[in-house]
Amino acid sequence: MNVKGKHYLTIWMKNEKVMMIDQNQLPFRFEIFESKNYAETCLAIKTMIVRGAGAIGAAAGFAMAQAFIQAKENILFAENARKEIETSRPTARNLFYATKRVFDAGCISTEKAIEEAQKIAEEDIASGKMIGIHGNSLIKDNTNILTHCNAGWLGFVDYGSALSPIYTASKEGKNIFVYADETRPRGQGARLTAWELNNENIPHIIIPDNAGAYLASKGKIDTMICGADRIAANGDTANKIGTFEKAIVAKTFGIPFYIAAPLSTFDINCCSGEDIIIEERTEDEILYQTGLDENNELRKILVCSPGSKAYNPAFDVTPASYINGFITEKGIIPANETAIKNILS
Amino acid sequence: MNVKGKHYLTIWMKNEKVMMIDQNQLPFRFEIFESKNYAETCLAIKTMIVRGAGAIGAAAGFAMAQAFIQAKENILFAENARKEIETSRPTARNLFYATKRVFDAGCISTEKAIEEAQKIAEEDIASGKMIGIHGNSLIKDNTNILTHCNAGWLGFVDYGSALSPIYTASKEGKNIFVYADETRPRGQGARLTAWELNNENIPHIIIPDNAGAYLASKGKIDTMICGADRIAANGDTANKIGTFEKAIVAKTFGIPFYIAAPLSTFDINCCSGEDIIIEERTEDEILYQTGLDENNELRKILVCSPGSKAYNPAFDVTPASYINGFITEKGIIPANETAIKNILS
Repeated sequence: MNVKGKHYLTIWMKNEKVMMIDQNQLPFRFEIFESKNYAETCLAIKTMIVRGAGAIGAAAGFAMAQAFIQAKENILFAENARKEIETSRPTARNLFYATKRVFDAGCISTEKAIEEAQKIAEEDIASGKMIGIHGNSLIKDNTNILTHCNAGWLGFVDYGSALSPIYTASKEGKNIFVYADETRPRGQGARLTAWELNNENIPHIIIPDNAGAYLASKGKIDTMICGADRIAANGDTANKIGTFEKAIVAKTFGIPFYIAAPLSTFDINCCSGEDIIIEERTEDEILYQTGLDENNELRKILVCSPGSKAYNPAFDVTPASYINGFITEKGIIPANETAIKNILS
Repeated sequence: MNVKGKHYLTIWMKNEKVMMIDQNQLPFRFEIFESKNYAETCLAIKTMIVRGAGAIGAAAGFAMAQAFIQAKENILFAENARKEIETSRPTARNLFYATKRVFDAGCISTEKAIEEAQKIAEEDIASGKMIGIHGNSLIKDNTNILTHCNAGWLGFVDYGSALSPIYTASKEGKNIFVYADETRPRGQGARLTAWELNNENIPHIIIPDNAGAYLASKGKIDTMICGADRIAANGDTANKIGTFEKAIVAKTFGIPFYIAAPLSTFDINCCSGEDIIIEERTEDEILYQTGLDENNELRKILVCSPGSKAYNPAFDVTPASYINGFITEKGIIPANETAIKNILS
């Protein structure tokens, strides 16, 4: 990934510290947050300093490794830490995948735990790159793509999922235009995706989440690509709230709708979308907005009618029948149980 | 309408002045804006101090009357003013309907122009009340209703369109719960609808526009009622951006989707949605947000990635086939050309 021409990763481990781009400061300030122990890394996941399926997975792996460093062979300490890490964000599949792998390695030695956490991050980079290569085959020259939320490199360790094919296509010289859904309430599209696309020089425009059907009805959208937080065995996909609406719009207008995700996002133990727990976040994310005031200072303002409450489900589930295919590091597969079972085996 | 227990109209004329609730100050401050001449009233329409189909119609009528007062029988002045008023918001049907009526009356005398403008406002109140009575028949006890944008009394002179049946049902003692779509970018749902419902003691919650499909898929929405800015002869309906998405979601889940609007919103000269001009507003409405800071001062902050542009179509067109019926002051009719022609004749 590129930040003003310099290469960065979203998250990495340096000795016992976990370093991460502070995504709550983006797009206004580019700062690296240093987490000294597993509890701080948990808090960083919870407060969304680090967010996005892959980046959460890497963070959880690093947090688990930090816990083993702190545990000094006290396995009960590591076990409790694991529980704490796993409850930091309930919907993300990658979180559990990472803690399990690092915990099992940590039972051998702390060095193995650190190695395994590094391996998870490296695999994330490799799979993001491959998702870009496979997904690129779906993108013709002169394509208008709509994406929701941020499933770019900020949501992973590098490359990303939904944006990775766009980066690959653009590097090949294809003419691409991206409609970035604002993605209320937290505005990951307007703030993170737009910031990424800007850094990568991809032509794009921010649209309100409300504008999807209008643009689709005018023939302005050729394809939609979104990421995923958890994919059930039958292909039902949990992703940022609003993804399901876009999938419905896509189906209505015959627009291909793809989910790009590494295989670590698939949860074979989860039969269908019915089994996916949907995180409900604080109403404050809707009632208040943060941004830069006229003096370039970050400020939080109330944007809703005082005295009214708000409801903030963070994810929704798009049924498999709305998904034209999954773009994975091993290729593109249809959204059905057999194809998922085959690619995971 | 009720504002902290006191009765108000959204807009009224007092001698040569037009008085209106300043909707750009809501929900944080309740202030009455005084417009001294037609140009100021035009600017109030343009800057959305007054907004919403019916209120714009009344404002346009009053502006036209103000122009005749200023014209002192110079018909050219009144003609130019009419053009200026009619270009203040291109999508609203009621605007043209009001200017035509008041202009024709003004050609007889200035007094007639003022009388006609008052009549338009009074008709708006009467039709809002009747829409409430007819629409109430669609609402059973214990109903969860989703509405988009603000088509309440703030969008009219009193009562409103989409919210009027809700007020009537509530007054009858029915148990009603309203999901108020935030309605980005300007947040009319989060700011105006929530404020109105709060003043009328209607149980409600603000949701991000993204949450509609999720709630619908969970069976949480029994019916959707929205307003309209212009309805074509075939029933295609222009309303706030995002309305079409809600209609698509409603159809997907078999939820009844109604448009509540006075007959003045129907434009028989407009064959279909294809003929409706969609207003594109400044990107600043997306890039910036206004609200109250911690010192209770109104403040404007940048909420998007600096350097990215935004696209801001203000309306979309919902095809008639997505609409279960129009709730008008003369009753509820199906969304088709024959029914529309009949009710207008």
